[in-house]
Amino acid sequence: MASDNLSAVLYKQNDLRLEQRPIPEPKEDEVLLQMAYVGICGSDVHYYEHGRIADFIVKDPMVIGHEASGTVVKVGKNVKHLKKGDRVAVEPGVPCRRCQFCKEGKYNLCPDLTFCATPPDDGNLARYYVHAADFCHKLPDNVSLEEGALLEPLSVGVHACRRAGVQLGTTVLVIGAGPIGLVSVLAAKAYGAFVVCTARSPRRLEVAKNCGADVTLVVDPAKEEESSIIERIRSAIGDLPNVTIDCSGNEKCITIGINITRTGGTLMLVGMGSQMVTVPLVNACAREIDIKSVFRYCNDYPIALEMVASGRCNVKQLVTHSFKLEQTVDAFEAARKKADNTIKVMISCRQG
Amino acid sequence: MASDNLSAVLYKQNDLRLEQRPIPEPKEDEVLLQMAYVGICGSDVHYYEHGRIADFIVKDPMVIGHEASGTVVKVGKNVKHLKKGDRVAVEPGVPCRRCQFCKEGKYNLCPDLTFCATPPDDGNLARYYVHAADFCHKLPDNVSLEEGALLEPLSVGVHACRRAGVQLGTTVLVIGAGPIGLVSVLAAKAYGAFVVCTARSPRRLEVAKNCGADVTLVVDPAKEEESSIIERIRSAIGDLPNVTIDCSGNEKCITIGINITRTGGTLMLVGMGSQMVTVPLVNACAREIDIKSVFRYCNDYPIALEMVASGRCNVKQLVTHSFKLEQTVDAFEAARKKADNTIKVMISCRQG
Amino acid sequence: MASDNLSAVLYKQNDLRLEQRPIPEPKEDEVLLQMAYVGICGSDVHYYEHGRIADFIVKDPMVIGHEASGTVVKVGKNVKHLKKGDRVAVEPGVPCRRCQFCKEGKYNLCPDLTFCATPPDDGNLARYYVHAADFCHKLPDNVSLEEGALLEPLSVGVHACRRAGVQLGTTVLVIGAGPIGLVSVLAAKAYGAFVVCTARSPRRLEVAKNCGADVTLVVDPAKEEESSIIERIRSAIGDLPNVTIDCSGNEKCITIGINITRTGGTLMLVGMGSQMVTVPLVNACAREIDIKSVFRYCNDYPIALEMVASGRCNVKQLVTHSFKLEQTVDAFEAARKKADNTIKVMISCRQG
Amino acid sequence: MASDNLSAVLYKQNDLRLEQRPIPEPKEDEVLLQMAYVGICGSDVHYYEHGRIADFIVKDPMVIGHEASGTVVKVGKNVKHLKKGDRVAVEPGVPCRRCQFCKEGKYNLCPDLTFCATPPDDGNLARYYVHAADFCHKLPDNVSLEEGALLEPLSVGVHACRRAGVQLGTTVLVIGAGPIGLVSVLAAKAYGAFVVCTARSPRRLEVAKNCGADVTLVVDPAKEEESSIIERIRSAIGDLPNVTIDCSGNEKCITIGINITRTGGTLMLVGMGSQMVTVPLVNACAREIDIKSVFRYCNDYPIALEMVASGRCNVKQLVTHSFKLEQTVDAFEAARKKADNTIKVMISCRQG
Repeated sequence: MASDNLSAVLYKQNDLRLEQRPIPEPKEDEVLLQMAYVGICGSDVHYYEHGRIADFIVKDPMVIGHEASGTVVKVGKNVKHLKKGDRVAVEPGVPCRRCQFCKEGKYNLCPDLTFCATPPDDGNLARYYVHAADFCHKLPDNVSLEEGALLEPLSVGVHACRRAGVQLGTTVLVIGAGPIGLVSVLAAKAYGAFVVCTARSPRRLEVAKNCGADVTLVVDPAKEEESSIIERIRSAIGDLPNVTIDCSGNEKCITIGINITRTGGTLMLVGMGSQMVTVPLVNACAREIDIKSVFRYCNDYPIALEMVASGRCNVKQLVTHSFKLEQTVDAFEAARKKADNTIKVMISCRQG
Repeated sequence: MASDNLSAVLYKQNDLRLEQRPIPEPKEDEVLLQMAYVGICGSDVHYYEHGRIADFIVKDPMVIGHEASGTVVKVGKNVKHLKKGDRVAVEPGVPCRRCQFCKEGKYNLCPDLTFCATPPDDGNLARYYVHAADFCHKLPDNVSLEEGALLEPLSVGVHACRRAGVQLGTTVLVIGAGPIGLVSVLAAKAYGAFVVCTARSPRRLEVAKNCGADVTLVVDPAKEEESSIIERIRSAIGDLPNVTIDCSGNEKCITIGINITRTGGTLMLVGMGSQMVTVPLVNACAREIDIKSVFRYCNDYPIALEMVASGRCNVKQLVTHSFKLEQTVDAFEAARKKADNTIKVMISCRQG
Repeated sequence: MASDNLSAVLYKQNDLRLEQRPIPEPKEDEVLLQMAYVGICGSDVHYYEHGRIADFIVKDPMVIGHEASGTVVKVGKNVKHLKKGDRVAVEPGVPCRRCQFCKEGKYNLCPDLTFCATPPDDGNLARYYVHAADFCHKLPDNVSLEEGALLEPLSVGVHACRRAGVQLGTTVLVIGAGPIGLVSVLAAKAYGAFVVCTARSPRRLEVAKNCGADVTLVVDPAKEEESSIIERIRSAIGDLPNVTIDCSGNEKCITIGINITRTGGTLMLVGMGSQMVTVPLVNACAREIDIKSVFRYCNDYPIALEMVASGRCNVKQLVTHSFKLEQTVDAFEAARKKADNTIKVMISCRQG
Repeated sequence: MASDNLSAVLYKQNDLRLEQRPIPEPKEDEVLLQMAYVGICGSDVHYYEHGRIADFIVKDPMVIGHEASGTVVKVGKNVKHLKKGDRVAVEPGVPCRRCQFCKEGKYNLCPDLTFCATPPDDGNLARYYVHAADFCHKLPDNVSLEEGALLEPLSVGVHACRRAGVQLGTTVLVIGAGPIGLVSVLAAKAYGAFVVCTARSPRRLEVAKNCGADVTLVVDPAKEEESSIIERIRSAIGDLPNVTIDCSGNEKCITIGINITRTGGTLMLVGMGSQMVTVPLVNACAREIDIKSVFRYCNDYPIALEMVASGRCNVKQLVTHSFKLEQTVDAFEAARKKADNTIKVMISCRQG
């Protein structure tokens, strides 16, 4: 068996190192994976730049990475649905399985969830990694390992659409065309919605269009009156959206979301912004607009996988930059620039 | 037939007059009611004091009043479920019956809803009044006409509880002990919840207790740190509430609602406050707390009626002041004082 | 204005006549339509052959036809969303708008629903016809009037899928490939399901395949053991269906539906069969399989229209035979043969 | 520590023995319980009489009993929410925690569920027993251990009511007044329903009345026409039930359930009857009546506990016979008689 387990370890703010770690042994309900691809998420970059997100602080060295896929190389003795050689997408959060949230089917809210690369839990940007077998989703032949890694962000879009009740016939406004905005567009289209996407960057709106957005509009709330923005969106789609998915976290965008969503509709908050926002909640009240949010995903991976396997979602177009595991620091530096033409930075974990 | 149709007509801000109006004729799907009781709502007082609420402006003289009950004195030719002599509660909003909201069972959101005493529609604080028969709910013998009038505010509490999914086993925090806070307590208790109610006024919390609140706490966010308030509530109930119903509209209370509601729970906004509020929405996101609101009620009157008829709700204790129709101006003056010991001011419309 | 209102009137069993009727005037909430297309439904044929369906008996001459489209030629004074020249699909049931079912958004269950060509209500196989404006759905330019008429059966498939919760990722078994089976296939595919369709006729299964069925299987429960059928379906799809839509009404098929549906899934009864059926309900109990059914449709036309307008549903392929209004009796004779190659018989109502 | 672990072991049909078994050790997520009370269920009696239920066959000696309560005497090292001395109700089914059903919050449908006294899994009619700690529900001081054991059948009633959407304002017909009928009455009343209960035995209907049934009717479908029964129920309650809970499994009762349930309502099958039943399913179709069923319970214990703790349910009145563990065979003989005055036979597991 191989002994090389090169791993990307975040020691602290701006201190990301590649080092060897022992190859772990799978427990009875686990599998050992030879990692294939790991995408870099905004939260990974945030840990890299700041060493923390809110109260989650990198105190001890932590393997980074949580948007991952790999190949099973060893299975624990209780594992039945996977065997050596199976290619899988890794759902990175493993819940306690015992609390009320777990029993009620909302395992993403489990207070004892372990989650890859959320301190103090190690991630999986490494050659080898052990994971709970039931959170490894087997990929069919027509889904690549790179697409497998992309199921993680896509599942966020799926979760947002499911919580908002997006359906055939729903009109969805997606605010923002970063990675989360784009997976929201992909998921909403796969669910049959009519989708309009707004963002500041024309270049990213091109990608949104390729992801299926029916209408795209360059919108910059810092430079244009809210009423003018609302009027432009309304006239572009001929009606108001039933669902608005805000992927910006910006208070002006949330305000637009409250005011533009159709009476009885839903405003979905996916982007996390500043701690306090000043918004016209009373306008949501007068029209029974539900303001909901998503925290990761729950039972969404199988749907995201079906979207890709059935050809409804071309998720792989989101990858704009590719690196090798050995080039991890370069990959993070590329990601932190947040350039218009950088959507998803993908790292290949295989040797050679 | 009687010819006296004394009616309370609001001409403009602070100009409320009693005058005779012709007794109307019911159309084929309507009934003519001899009015029994009409309660005064905060919105009535607001029109009296300001001549408007937001964009709803009293331009022409308008009969005031919408929390009403009466007795059928004449029925239109298509009306089958009511007959002369039936005592009814009047559900004051009548929708268009043709739009998408009406067809989907959300008639309270109908954009063409006519609603008693919302300009330009006349209310029913009068001797006689005509209403759509299907929005008149027949009272069983053991429900009084005064209780019938109180079904209107109670239905708001029912609607809030239904939209929040309040059930046996739910812990509900009600913020505020004005009329809407108190009907929320009544409804949540009838649904089987464990209820804690907070307010500034100990006197009103006494009423909350009589309405069934399991725990009451004097809380004044202007005088106490939010964290201290949250800690006091938490320790009083031994856990966090699944559902928070804010009846204050106050941004500090909404903030408490966001931060204290259990992960995966619901914050219900019932009180309408200032246009812009500064709140930590991101805290709702990280825990998938749904922020919902109610606009009046929809299919809630039958449940409110069942609550009262079955003895689960003692709603009549909310009436603290009673006046005759002829004393309407006095009644409004009493209501506008918003004293601690004033909960519901009730006007009897019967002569003599 | 034209005076020709040739109408297809069913007098009694096997007595279908073409005769002139006066062109009606639209009331204030109605529109007058110049009829374009009317499809023949199994129920129309049943009335033609038997003069009744259950307790609905043709006592007086009744205009037949209810799967219809037309062009607005006159609008009532309250009608705002339609104007002369608009092309519309006619949703044939108009509810009372006042009962509990109507208020709760289940207007298809309204006990006072009037429904085209259900005795004693006239249908719309005629040159001209008046209908409630809000049950006329305006067709966009890219949807033809023939497709408009086909929204009626398609809406049944939509209603079945919605009630069964069919979604992206659901595996659906459709039993039967008659018109209702085929619209169920179309709707389930549009909702993103993986669909297997079974029927006796290979010819019809060809159409099912064209409608998008992923797997088709010739199945005749009269000639093959149930266990063998179940095993063949299971091995063809590699799993059990989450949802089974039975469009046969046959007790052997219902039994298969109960036994083959995945634990926790739904068996949807769409086809109506004999009065009493002998089935293993206890097998549904032990696995919490919900047995549901559909009665027509409710709020489904807009979704069916979106399916066709967006290109997700090729519904027009269902039309196998076309006739002129003057040839109505020939059309009914063609339909009553129920030949393998007869799916939908369509009648054009236009002159010349 | 005690060494007496007297256990009631079913060897085969009619061969139930009391014998010593070793006291087990709790694993890290388990607790060791000193058993307090175990109720006898119809399924226990069925195993005793027949040695099997369907495909579940007693092949090896099996400890009987699954309606249980006890006191914690030892806790595994991971257990945090329980400590020595805590009194608990034992939820007898422990799922795999890893399959799709477990993850979606339907753990009762888990195919790998272990369940007390369902072969080959041992039950808990013994002095000591080890169980998964998270399926032990801590009893508050005001709930007795005997009531704790009764949470098991009560949870079935809760599950039925939840799946049927029973609410304040729902009219529920419960067919049957055996233990499951009675817990259905108790649960439906706690949820605020108006409840009518029918059964053959006047004596049991007395208990139904004490459980809160608003109307009780002696009904014997073997002796009375179905139409007459329906008419009697309808006139007794003044309307049709929204929900019918059939606890008989009898095909005549299921037929009544289909025909009497209000349009759009739900027929809940709780009683399991013969393999094949002949019923008018088409009548359910024409009125969109959902036919659902319950398989045990899922997330219902906390609600059942709240019902008892809050005083809404007097469940202890169901106990008609009490025995000591040493008298287990006598207890089973008493239960198998199924006499009118035998509802719940309860066994005390404590020594002395």
